[in-house]
Amino acid sequence: MKYCSDCGAKLVEQIPANDDRLRYVCPQCEIIHYQNPKVVVGCLPVAGDKVLLCRRAIAPRMGYWTIPAGFMENGETMLAGALRETREEAAAEVCDEVLYRLFDIPHINQVYVFYRANLNGGFGIGPESLESALFSEADIPWSELAFPIVTDVLTEFFADRKTGEYPVRVSTPSPLWAKHVGWEPDTDKTL
Amino acid sequence: MKYCSDCGAKLVEQIPANDDRLRYVCPQCEIIHYQNPKVVVGCLPVAGDKVLLCRRAIAPRMGYWTIPAGFMENGETMLAGALRETREEAAAEVCDEVLYRLFDIPHINQVYVFYRANLNGGFGIGPESLESALFSEADIPWSELAFPIVTDVLTEFFADRKTGEYPVRVSTPSPLWAKHVGWEPDTDKTL
Ligand SMILES: [Zn+2]
Ligand SMILES: [Zn+2]
Repeated sequence: MKYCSDCGAKLVEQIPANDDRLRYVCPQCEIIHYQNPKVVVGCLPVAGDKVLLCRRAIAPRMGYWTIPAGFMENGETMLAGALRETREEAAAEVCDEVLYRLFDIPHINQVYVFYRANLNGGFGIGPESLESALFSEADIPWSELAFPIVTDVLTEFFADRKTGEYPVRVSTPSPLWAKHVGWEPDTDKTL
Repeated sequence: MKYCSDCGAKLVEQIPANDDRLRYVCPQCEIIHYQNPKVVVGCLPVAGDKVLLCRRAIAPRMGYWTIPAGFMENGETMLAGALRETREEAAAEVCDEVLYRLFDIPHINQVYVFYRANLNGGFGIGPESLESALFSEADIPWSELAFPIVTDVLTEFFADRKTGEYPVRVSTPSPLWAKHVGWEPDTDKTL
C-alpha cells in the first residue's frame, strides 16, 4: 500500500492519535487506511458416508484435493459465500447447512469458516477444479490433500460422525504449513 | 476507491476475466483491488450470574450499553482480538474463553465473532467507554443496549445459562437496525 485510494496522494506510515499500531495514513485527506484479515468461507458436502472433494486446477497446490472454499464477498453472508463457492468449484447444491469449523491463520491474515451440509443431487467440475469426487473415510487421499486445514476438517468429521456430535471448533494451524506450500502474508491466494 | 494503492493510477470498474462481479482494476499495473468483509471480534465477560457491559463513549450509539468488541487486526487470532478489545474497552482480563456467537451483517460487510469467558479479577473503563458495570439478568438495561446483536447475545446467554448448553449460533440481524443507528456500508464504524 503506497498511495491513497481516495485521493492518490503518497501515503505515510505513522501511529495515529489514540492508536498503538503503524497505519497507512494519507497526509492530504487524512484518511487512515486500515488493513484487516479476510474471511474464507467453504462447505463440506456430505452424501451418506462420503464427502465431496475437488482437485485443484490452480496454484497453490495444483493437483491436490480440497474442500470447496474461497474469499467471502461484500454483501453476502458466510453461508451464502460457502454455497457460492460450492457451486463454483464443485457445481454442487447442498441443503441442511450447519456451521462446523473455524480456523485462524494469523500469519496470512485470514479467517476460515466452514459449514457442513448434505449434497443435494449431483455435482460437477468448476473452472478452478480438475475433478470432483465422493470419498468414504477409507478412500480419502490423505497424502494428496491440499492444506493441513483440509486434513483437520476431514479427520474431525469422520471422528464426529461416529459419535453423532459435531461441536463447532476453532483453532490455528501451524504456521509451518504456509511456508511449506509457498503462501505469503497479504496475498489474495486462497484454498 | 478511486486510485490504485500500489501505483497511484486512476482505477476503472470492470468485470475481470473469469469473474462475474465489477471490481476496481488498475489499468497501469493490472492489479485487481478486491473489497471484502471485515471481522469484528468481541467477548462476553461473565462473573457468577452477571455479565460485564460497557457504556459507549463514542458514536454511533454513544451512551448506550454494549459488549467489548472491535475490528480484528492483521496478525492476530479472533480470540486474541476479542481479548485485546476486552482490555481496551473494559480494562478486564478473562479466562476459560469459548467461541459463542457469530453474526453476518451483509449490508455493512461485517462478520461478528463473540467469545464467552469468565472475568478474571477486576475491570475498569477504557478510553472508548463512559463506564463499565456488571449486570444480572434482571438488571440488564434492555432499552439502552447499543445494538440489536447485543440484545440477541444477552437474551441467548441468559436462556442458555438455564440449560447449561451454549450452542454456537450464527444468524443475520434485520437490516433495519443499521439504518436506525445511522450505519452505512463500507465505513469503519463498529460496535
Ligand atoms: Zn488521500
Ligand atoms: Zn496500479
